[in-house]
Amino acid sequence: MNAIKYLEFSADRVNKRLASWLASKPFVHPELRKAMLYSVGAGGKRLRPALMFASYEMFGGRAADILDAACAVEMIHTYSLVHDDLPAMDDDDLRRGKPTNHKVFGEALAILAGDGLLTDAFSLLLSGNKKIRPENRLKAAEILSFRAGAAGMVSGQAADLEAENFQAMKISRKKLPGLLNYIHRHKTADMIMASMEMGCALSGRFKCLPKISSFAEKVGLCFQAVDDILDVTADKKKLGKSGSDSKNKKLTFVSLYGLEKAKKMADKYAAEALEILDSVKCGDPVKKRALRELAVFSLRRDR
Amino acid sequence: MNAIKYLEFSADRVNKRLASWLASKPFVHPELRKAMLYSVGAGGKRLRPALMFASYEMFGGRAADILDAACAVEMIHTYSLVHDDLPAMDDDDLRRGKPTNHKVFGEALAILAGDGLLTDAFSLLLSGNKKIRPENRLKAAEILSFRAGAAGMVSGQAADLEAENFQAMKISRKKLPGLLNYIHRHKTADMIMASMEMGCALSGRFKCLPKISSFAEKVGLCFQAVDDILDVTADKKKLGKSGSDSKNKKLTFVSLYGLEKAKKMADKYAAEALEILDSVKCGDPVKKRALRELAVFSLRRDR
Repeated sequence: MNAIKYLEFSADRVNKRLASWLASKPFVHPELRKAMLYSVGAGGKRLRPALMFASYEMFGGRAADILDAACAVEMIHTYSLVHDDLPAMDDDDLRRGKPTNHKVFGEALAILAGDGLLTDAFSLLLSGNKKIRPENRLKAAEILSFRAGAAGMVSGQAADLEAENFQAMKISRKKLPGLLNYIHRHKTADMIMASMEMGCALSGRFKCLPKISSFAEKVGLCFQAVDDILDVTADKKKLGKSGSDSKNKKLTFVSLYGLEKAKKMADKYAAEALEILDSVKCGDPVKKRALRELAVFSLRRDR
Repeated sequence: MNAIKYLEFSADRVNKRLASWLASKPFVHPELRKAMLYSVGAGGKRLRPALMFASYEMFGGRAADILDAACAVEMIHTYSLVHDDLPAMDDDDLRRGKPTNHKVFGEALAILAGDGLLTDAFSLLLSGNKKIRPENRLKAAEILSFRAGAAGMVSGQAADLEAENFQAMKISRKKLPGLLNYIHRHKTADMIMASMEMGCALSGRFKCLPKISSFAEKVGLCFQAVDDILDVTADKKKLGKSGSDSKNKKLTFVSLYGLEKAKKMADKYAAEALEILDSVKCGDPVKKRALRELAVFSLRRDR
């Protein structure tokens, strides 16, 4: 199966499960449910679930058995977008081609929808995936909470805010590459790492975690470099967002290094990622190809 | 040990563990860490951890073994206060006698501090408590995510916002008691229930969960009724918050029923709670007394 088909297949499963789980969950306040379903149903590539599936399959599992874990990662990703778009944060009006959550439901409900998605990601992960051994589920949830939490994605967003309008700031230029790396490592790479690490952990092959982790880190950094490049080069309609990074004068690969050097750096990360994956001795070499193709696709994308 | 000593003992352990865990956690952005530590260190009775300890001890455990789980519940409680205080929500300036998180760190960082505390609660719960069996930890985390999530506390907050300025709304008066019950059940009782249910789950006595749950629900409802009463009767300095519920014209026991009837209802819930606990046959009857005293204390408090 090629990468596009793999993504479509994953997205279809994840979309259906997420929508039905959230729609049928008891006790949920009706407006809150609407706000959560709105952002979860707003599309997106569902790259993180696909990476988790591919990682799990590489270690001998069947994707269908970890559908709830894959949905959990996508819920965390979605919550982070809802909170990042808030007026107090990036103040974005458009996301995936649709008005952002707070534009439709108001700020208070958007904050709560994010909180709900974040918490319920753990609820689905911990209560679902019944075919997976408790120790493996526990390990996967531990990874998710670490990568998404204050040691991970949340700190990435905090650093991103710190670096806003970096050109006017008194940060020494020497320190900017380190700050940029911190932002991208945590804001983006951490959840890409979580996805593949969880796939590995759910299979019980804990010994392979370090290698998968190194590969996923490079994929994550490259993914964000490509994102920065697309933020200035891509057709805004195709991208489905308003290119607020350049508007907000954010610290990005492009704003720091310029477009050409950013492209070269993205290529370098991509090459390093594939080199690591090719050196991985764990797992099924045939299934590994799917993970490789997914990584290549996500790093060569145009939106 | 009487209730005050039990609370002091619990608070002391929880405060120390929370502060040291958050202070030593690697990779955390320095400003984010400050914002998280600020709200975690702003005091509070630490009632929920104490209720978890007492419930766990009633089922034969040693409180020290579930310190991380107790901290997790307090982190979730703290995050909910940080987000509830935001300008888009209750817009409170004062919490536990100190400026609220967004007043000190700004709105963006307060949102992130809340997100970090919420996510890291799971991180601490899942990576810690090593003496507890994986199945029991998994069950406890499942309970926490369910009670704190969209089927629980987050929906309580959504309903609370819906009911704001209820007097001007076109909600039929007949529907208000049901709405008030929904708010209190989810916004307050759910996390009190989570605390005691988790204590029970961590001990592995899953069969006793329903009884503990019913008891905790009544304690939670009574606790909120008392809170509503104190919001209008107590010394604001002693209470350490600004009494925003009456300012915001919130739907509360007092605004709906008046002070006298609210007091009678609180007494009724308290009596029902104790009746349920007295009928519980599970657990150690001597240790059960600590839980009873804690409940009575929290329902008779003056702040």
